[in-house]
Amino acid sequence: MRILVINPNTTASMTAKIGEAARAVARRGSEVTAVSPVMGPASIESHYDEALAVPGLLQCIAQGEREGVDGYVIACFGDPGLKAARELARGPVVGIAEAAMHLASMVGTRFSVVTTLARTIGQARHLAEAYGMERFCANVRACELPVLELEEPGSNARERIVAECRRALDEDGADSIVLGCAGMADLCAHIQQTLAVPVIDGVAAGVQMVESLVALGLRTSKRGELARPLPKSMAGLLAGFTLAP
Amino acid sequence: MRILVINPNTTASMTAKIGEAARAVARRGSEVTAVSPVMGPASIESHYDEALAVPGLLQCIAQGEREGVDGYVIACFGDPGLKAARELARGPVVGIAEAAMHLASMVGTRFSVVTTLARTIGQARHLAEAYGMERFCANVRACELPVLELEEPGSNARERIVAECRRALDEDGADSIVLGCAGMADLCAHIQQTLAVPVIDGVAAGVQMVESLVALGLRTSKRGELARPLPKSMAGLLAGFTLAP
Amino acid sequence: MRILVINPNTTASMTAKIGEAARAVARRGSEVTAVSPVMGPASIESHYDEALAVPGLLQCIAQGEREGVDGYVIACFGDPGLKAARELARGPVVGIAEAAMHLASMVGTRFSVVTTLARTIGQARHLAEAYGMERFCANVRACELPVLELEEPGSNARERIVAECRRALDEDGADSIVLGCAGMADLCAHIQQTLAVPVIDGVAAGVQMVESLVALGLRTSKRGELARPLPKSMAGLLAGFTLAP
Amino acid sequence: MRILVINPNTTASMTAKIGEAARAVARRGSEVTAVSPVMGPASIESHYDEALAVPGLLQCIAQGEREGVDGYVIACFGDPGLKAARELARGPVVGIAEAAMHLASMVGTRFSVVTTLARTIGQARHLAEAYGMERFCANVRACELPVLELEEPGSNARERIVAECRRALDEDGADSIVLGCAGMADLCAHIQQTLAVPVIDGVAAGVQMVESLVALGLRTSKRGELARPLPKSMAGLLAGFTLAP
Amino acid sequence: MRILVINPNTTASMTAKIGEAARAVARRGSEVTAVSPVMGPASIESHYDEALAVPGLLQCIAQGEREGVDGYVIACFGDPGLKAARELARGPVVGIAEAAMHLASMVGTRFSVVTTLARTIGQARHLAEAYGMERFCANVRACELPVLELEEPGSNARERIVAECRRALDEDGADSIVLGCAGMADLCAHIQQTLAVPVIDGVAAGVQMVESLVALGLRTSKRGELARPLPKSMAGLLAGFTLAP
Amino acid sequence: MRILVINPNTTASMTAKIGEAARAVARRGSEVTAVSPVMGPASIESHYDEALAVPGLLQCIAQGEREGVDGYVIACFGDPGLKAARELARGPVVGIAEAAMHLASMVGTRFSVVTTLARTIGQARHLAEAYGMERFCANVRACELPVLELEEPGSNARERIVAECRRALDEDGADSIVLGCAGMADLCAHIQQTLAVPVIDGVAAGVQMVESLVALGLRTSKRGELARPLPKSMAGLLAGFTLAP
Repeated sequence: MRILVINPNTTASMTAKIGEAARAVARRGSEVTAVSPVMGPASIESHYDEALAVPGLLQCIAQGEREGVDGYVIACFGDPGLKAARELARGPVVGIAEAAMHLASMVGTRFSVVTTLARTIGQARHLAEAYGMERFCANVRACELPVLELEEPGSNARERIVAECRRALDEDGADSIVLGCAGMADLCAHIQQTLAVPVIDGVAAGVQMVESLVALGLRTSKRGELARPLPKSMAGLLAGFTLAP
Repeated sequence: MRILVINPNTTASMTAKIGEAARAVARRGSEVTAVSPVMGPASIESHYDEALAVPGLLQCIAQGEREGVDGYVIACFGDPGLKAARELARGPVVGIAEAAMHLASMVGTRFSVVTTLARTIGQARHLAEAYGMERFCANVRACELPVLELEEPGSNARERIVAECRRALDEDGADSIVLGCAGMADLCAHIQQTLAVPVIDGVAAGVQMVESLVALGLRTSKRGELARPLPKSMAGLLAGFTLAP
Repeated sequence: MRILVINPNTTASMTAKIGEAARAVARRGSEVTAVSPVMGPASIESHYDEALAVPGLLQCIAQGEREGVDGYVIACFGDPGLKAARELARGPVVGIAEAAMHLASMVGTRFSVVTTLARTIGQARHLAEAYGMERFCANVRACELPVLELEEPGSNARERIVAECRRALDEDGADSIVLGCAGMADLCAHIQQTLAVPVIDGVAAGVQMVESLVALGLRTSKRGELARPLPKSMAGLLAGFTLAP
Repeated sequence: MRILVINPNTTASMTAKIGEAARAVARRGSEVTAVSPVMGPASIESHYDEALAVPGLLQCIAQGEREGVDGYVIACFGDPGLKAARELARGPVVGIAEAAMHLASMVGTRFSVVTTLARTIGQARHLAEAYGMERFCANVRACELPVLELEEPGSNARERIVAECRRALDEDGADSIVLGCAGMADLCAHIQQTLAVPVIDGVAAGVQMVESLVALGLRTSKRGELARPLPKSMAGLLAGFTLAP
Repeated sequence: MRILVINPNTTASMTAKIGEAARAVARRGSEVTAVSPVMGPASIESHYDEALAVPGLLQCIAQGEREGVDGYVIACFGDPGLKAARELARGPVVGIAEAAMHLASMVGTRFSVVTTLARTIGQARHLAEAYGMERFCANVRACELPVLELEEPGSNARERIVAECRRALDEDGADSIVLGCAGMADLCAHIQQTLAVPVIDGVAAGVQMVESLVALGLRTSKRGELARPLPKSMAGLLAGFTLAP
Repeated sequence: MRILVINPNTTASMTAKIGEAARAVARRGSEVTAVSPVMGPASIESHYDEALAVPGLLQCIAQGEREGVDGYVIACFGDPGLKAARELARGPVVGIAEAAMHLASMVGTRFSVVTTLARTIGQARHLAEAYGMERFCANVRACELPVLELEEPGSNARERIVAECRRALDEDGADSIVLGCAGMADLCAHIQQTLAVPVIDGVAAGVQMVESLVALGLRTSKRGELARPLPKSMAGLLAGFTLAP
């Protein structure tokens, strides 16, 4: 099967890291590719950034559809454009926050999300509620790390994240941790080993979930809300997004 | 005060109708302008359409900020881009679904939403939940009318909408109606007169709400989630969306 | 339009202050009057006080109906008698807690209520839930100020309220403040200026909301729960509340 | 122990019937008295009626406190004035909707409420939510019977109620019935025998619950929200409600 | 009436203490017996323990049915096997967590549960949600006391429990306490006297509730989910649990 | 990896069918075995059956732990004993209702469960709520098929299930179907092909989920509620369940 992992920001080093994390867990016989859009923000740390990442993300999905991709992972913890992507795709599309939270609810009873900037806490809480995970989500905590600082060699990002995870266990009564940014994928094993509780990285979780759906022959329902969008004219800069009837 | 009503689709006749409905309820001393983006879909009937309407909408907000606009109404019942718009704007931003549902909860105990295509029911339900209005929302009903059919003279849109509203009162136990599309703004008075229950059009409701917020000196909170987005590089087609630091 | 703002307690100085706050935000062409009942408690700080404030409040509504009032604001943060008032009134009736919480949800993502006595926290929480605002309400905090101390010149009420608001921002993660007592109306501008976040006074918010509803031609739905009460005999002291058939 | 059952309306025949139903289930050694207020409405079928029933009800509680009553039942299905009554009383106070719904949740998995007028459905739903019983409450159904028609010999009230109960079992998937009016207390045994499912009358349920609380030595918590109201001046007709300091 | 109180663990001293607490509140004319199963764990402190306590508990119910028992109390705060027991029993079955939480919601506005080991907090929270009591449950707190330490003379269990209860009042804003283990039944009066707020022991509460249900003629609904199980073959060690058709 | 799929009932033909469905989706390199307990009921159609299936199920888990099994699937739609099993197991344990509902929420927006007997509807609803899936679960529908009739060649089970699924799509607005019994595993492909919407069989879904968790190195959190049970004496028939310290 062919799985496309889309990093919705345009920072290549992060796409590379995400691709590595994704391929590390891909099952035999699964071809996993990581891409990022040709338009949009360098990192996603606000609703504005999310909104502007979505057109490029949808372009990646449309391209994937033309190439026969079987399933998609949206590799940003805000799960931007998830429902729009599902409308475009025949196969399944999974967000990394979605995948991580669902799996966390199966290996523990209460997880805390540890994320980057405090301003993104609201979106993580919103997703927890939208996915029905609010009763499992003990807290959402921020390290006040900008996303791209995760890419800088020599930053103390790892230590700060581990420290925040410890506070989650001690103060929130959490029994597991969800990492709140795709850029933390490479830290997952280290943190899990350090804390001795399940630590869930959404990129790896997302790959597993979408591979599972494809393996089960489950594709996005085209009855109702997620049916393919009606073709209509698109104006201006976005004219290229007009769908063929 | 200066209020900008943004029709996030690019259909000029609908923008004109929305502007008329908006100005009809504007308070004295309020200057209300209706615009639509220069990019994006001709109508919004899917998550895909919503996603592609948002960049153009954000451009309108950014332009409004440069011109000193005091408050904004997003005139599409899916309230696309609402939180991103709030990040950009200093003043208040209100969505028409948001405004209509809130007001409905003050003049009745249970409203039904009557909307266009059934595929949009899910989004209306999602918004009702996100706004805390689920205990007031008896049902969301579709007439299976495409949005642009509302613009066609001679269509039987009005009759179909009235018929669906009647079913809402009889079958859902609703005591009030929320119109589920900005394109129904011109039908509101007629339907209310016909049914003798409160019928809420979001465009008019949105104008009232945003004028109220401006009059009260209430602007979007810049502490936390809705703070102005961090400036960062934007690539490709969307390079123009880079924010100044 | 004619708007009646009812202070449900019988303390004239508070009614005067409420009237001032109300008129300060009234739109041109709107005639706003503040009254208080001729029966009932001097302040409202318990369910008992609320219950005994309601008959006098309903008398004010009944009188307003005879005089052709277009809409009503109930200016006590417990929103006493709101549904009973809606049954009596043809036009809209809005409670100040209701108005303030709804508006707060449009300019921020999480508000804290700062109120007078701790024993009223439960009622504020109950209202937040009944209005669907529980997901926006970060906390309800009390200053342990009796209501009438707000009327005393020279009290340190303002400082204590500001201090509690600061704790709300710091400890609750709130991005906006709802003032939990009509008697705080005159402090709103000062607190907002001091804290640089939206601070919502329910009296002003209530006036704006009810004016909006009147301007939109929206009256209380008379289909179902809020229909005019059936006429029936009333005994004893309350015989005067018998409705004409 | 001494239990006071308060019919908050002023219709003596109904008070007599309620008293009979209450005494029929009272435990040995328990002295159960039914009273009704000297002021207020002849029946309670609206929020207005409820509001005007509460002062008289509180008078009954205050009198009961002077006489050393151990516990109270509020015998109207809207549970009017419940929290205000709890503030006044040292012992426990139970509403009949509260008692009936709680007990229903222990003998079945989903109950339907069968009540009098459709306009009271909203209040029953509101109570189900406030008591946490919404997941047990399959539906609230009305027979469109005015309360006082239950008092008329020769009415077909019983047949209409039984028919509505049958619909609740068949259409709602209910496995038990809660009777939605104190005036139905005398029909309970007949309906239960006819339908062969648990049928709960709130008057009898309320007596059992309050006797249980008294027997366990449990009195209303005076820490916080339900503490005795602060003494303060009451004006006008209600001057007599001033509490002694 | 005959009430069977089942301690689902096999520790005789605890059964004796439970029996004493139960008989102390039984009403005149009620014959209350406490038993424990002949199979299963010595104490219940995990889901595993609960699961293995249930077969023995069901044996007690089946035996009770043969002997004409009128109602049952399950005297372990996890309410193990409650629905299975209800299927077997003709009369009512009440769990002690269920009884205690329901009664707590009638004498206060927010209770905290004070229990034994922290690992049982999750189950108490789960029950609060399943019973609809989550809006009344301020917190669940553990003393880190193993259940059987409550049986040891000379342990400082009582002091530790009182200290945790005080923290519940001070830190959680609770106005009442629910004791989270049947083994605390003998401490209830002392704690209530010490703290001057309602303290609810589930064993006593359960006896009162089930006696109330029996007195009201309310038996478990046999329509739907709680109907008697279909007879079918049981294999192996559990062959004795085969039901007669 | 080694995965153990446990059919908690003792009907060998059903275990064989479940094993086949499980192995059909197992990934390369995964060794999937299906077993059933040596004690307990022949089918599970009530809470009583569930309760008596759990000890045998836990024996299977304990045996699996001794043999180094990596993960477990509980193949009964009531997910009996799930938390107890998680306490025993080092690796992950997944229930088939849990797995199916979670996956359904990723390929559609609203699923209906189609199950066997109506008396099991309550348990399916309870699980949907406990897993946070209630906002995705449009309805739970029963075909009134006993579980073992699914095993009978020549029964019209398949037709009845398909017919009920069609009603779910038409009447509930569902866009996907969750099969509500492990015994329906062999019908999944046929039904999906017939209805052209996603149809999710929990057995296959459970295998995919648990394989995913194992592949990600995620094991059951041993911090808190799901820690290994404390060793303690077990009496009588169940003495063999005593855990080694």
